[in-house]
Amino acid sequence: MTVRPQARIAAALVCLLVTDVSLAKGRQHDPLPSWNEGAAKEALLTFVEAVTDESGKDFVPAAERIAVFDNDGTLWVEQPVYTQLTFVTDRVKEMAPEHPEWKTTQPFQGVIEGDMDAVTATGEQGMMELLMATHGGMTAEAYEDAVERWIATARHPRFDRRYTELVYQPQLELMDHLRAHGFKVFIVSGGGIQFMRPWADEVYGVPPEQVVGSSFVTTFELRDGEPTLVRQPQIRFIDDKEGKPVGIYEHIGRRPILAFGNSDGDLQMVQYTTAGEGPSLGLFLHHTDARREYAYDREGHVGVLDKSLDLAAEEGWVVVDMKKDWRVVFPK
Amino acid sequence: MTVRPQARIAAALVCLLVTDVSLAKGRQHDPLPSWNEGAAKEALLTFVEAVTDESGKDFVPAAERIAVFDNDGTLWVEQPVYTQLTFVTDRVKEMAPEHPEWKTTQPFQGVIEGDMDAVTATGEQGMMELLMATHGGMTAEAYEDAVERWIATARHPRFDRRYTELVYQPQLELMDHLRAHGFKVFIVSGGGIQFMRPWADEVYGVPPEQVVGSSFVTTFELRDGEPTLVRQPQIRFIDDKEGKPVGIYEHIGRRPILAFGNSDGDLQMVQYTTAGEGPSLGLFLHHTDARREYAYDREGHVGVLDKSLDLAAEEGWVVVDMKKDWRVVFPK
Repeated sequence: MTVRPQARIAAALVCLLVTDVSLAKGRQHDPLPSWNEGAAKEALLTFVEAVTDESGKDFVPAAERIAVFDNDGTLWVEQPVYTQLTFVTDRVKEMAPEHPEWKTTQPFQGVIEGDMDAVTATGEQGMMELLMATHGGMTAEAYEDAVERWIATARHPRFDRRYTELVYQPQLELMDHLRAHGFKVFIVSGGGIQFMRPWADEVYGVPPEQVVGSSFVTTFELRDGEPTLVRQPQIRFIDDKEGKPVGIYEHIGRRPILAFGNSDGDLQMVQYTTAGEGPSLGLFLHHTDARREYAYDREGHVGVLDKSLDLAAEEGWVVVDMKKDWRVVFPK
Repeated sequence: MTVRPQARIAAALVCLLVTDVSLAKGRQHDPLPSWNEGAAKEALLTFVEAVTDESGKDFVPAAERIAVFDNDGTLWVEQPVYTQLTFVTDRVKEMAPEHPEWKTTQPFQGVIEGDMDAVTATGEQGMMELLMATHGGMTAEAYEDAVERWIATARHPRFDRRYTELVYQPQLELMDHLRAHGFKVFIVSGGGIQFMRPWADEVYGVPPEQVVGSSFVTTFELRDGEPTLVRQPQIRFIDDKEGKPVGIYEHIGRRPILAFGNSDGDLQMVQYTTAGEGPSLGLFLHHTDARREYAYDREGHVGVLDKSLDLAAEEGWVVVDMKKDWRVVFPK
């Protein structure tokens, strides 16, 4: 069977037509049903329309439609502690039988015995030791296995749901809406790049190559002739604050046109994104909903939103108010 | 205007049909016209058919169809010296007026005066100084501008063509063929990641975010309130040899199923790729064509292909013989 060129052109035209109509401005279908009507939703819809309108002054070619999202507190819950920290402590307990010396060594002893004061007393140095022991000194595959096993079963202490069920439904819709309009969506997180990759595609539709995050030094060796990647107990890159625009430069190689964060750790990413010459949109999620999720901003040990909140108005960044702007928080 | 669901489904079916037929096995159209018939071309076509045949045992879902290509000597000419080295020396000459001290300081003096013996005498340390002076100590934008200006005008000493015209036509066809079959094509090069990005999309169809390479430490700062990325005179990562699988892990986050290199610098990348559990294909381009391009392999200062050549047969890697396997080398 062969297809005549005319038939192929006709089919292509039909494809184009359908696409055009389904993306038409009429907004017959609400692409963001979990967002309440208001300034935030309007800003998002208007921005997407503007950069995809070929006849408009703000048109951006599809290849340059890069959107970046922070993860912790922007795409999923980050309270009462960063999810990855819970992974760290669970992992110490899981690994303890192979490390009898941990029974009498802080901060490991504190983690095993549930004595968080003892852990906290070891300070930043102690936290670093926990991180190294659980994220380094193993093959890339062993680490991936550990993450996959944990994420499939661990449950959030308050909501008693798996962490991947505590992602924000409005953000899932927004990412879908962006992708449907030619955007490439990246995660740019302070969290571990390889901690997110095993589940980000299934949960967010973001493939591994579009996840940017903090990383450990990794080396390559042949083990019994088998090519093996080994994670070393040494941090390679911290993708937070000033690190985020650097991570974007290194990994993506072009300036995003939309950046969505929730804390001062995202300030530089949003600054960098909205300093571009063309149209751009910067957003911060403000956690204002103690009933359905959490309420926090200027103080605390997780997700501090302070300076960015002060700057938002003059910089034209959108502050999304979880309580007001989101009809639902979590997927059903 | 609205479109009924039935009309959209019908249109989608037509789209699918056209796609299916144009990708049918019949090979009515030769997707690789610049490849001569032979084992290499057959291996490539057969591999692509196998991993895209949904009913076959070697089917690979589109998302996992990752192909990685080395750049220097695999996608474009790397003789008589790596193109980026020519950029370095041209750049020193261009920057010399701002650096009067270079007139009397090696290795800069040697570059300016064309005294390559003096440059060579400074050894690796001298080369590093040239690299730092031309690739660090400037903003990301200034560096990009410099690369763009240079690549638009510099010409190869033997072929008197621009370097981007000295890419290999058979590889352009191969990358197109892979993309048409759902592959995501990455460059994984020992060359500078930001040296390739300004032109890789136009020349190879590889967008910036799919270019992996060596990099310099970059920092973020506000300069007069302007978010600015500054390249430091310090190497961050060398994406060569053992570094290539590491770069793939860091940047792509999954194991490729096709890897194409041309030197022992690509050995580990090909080893890692072909050690995967599913189907995979490793290839090395053998430069055998002194008349149309260059002939070199086991010795020299550029693109040494030695150990990989010895291992190819037992590992099942395809050695592409430029003289025999390629009908044409460069685009018309």
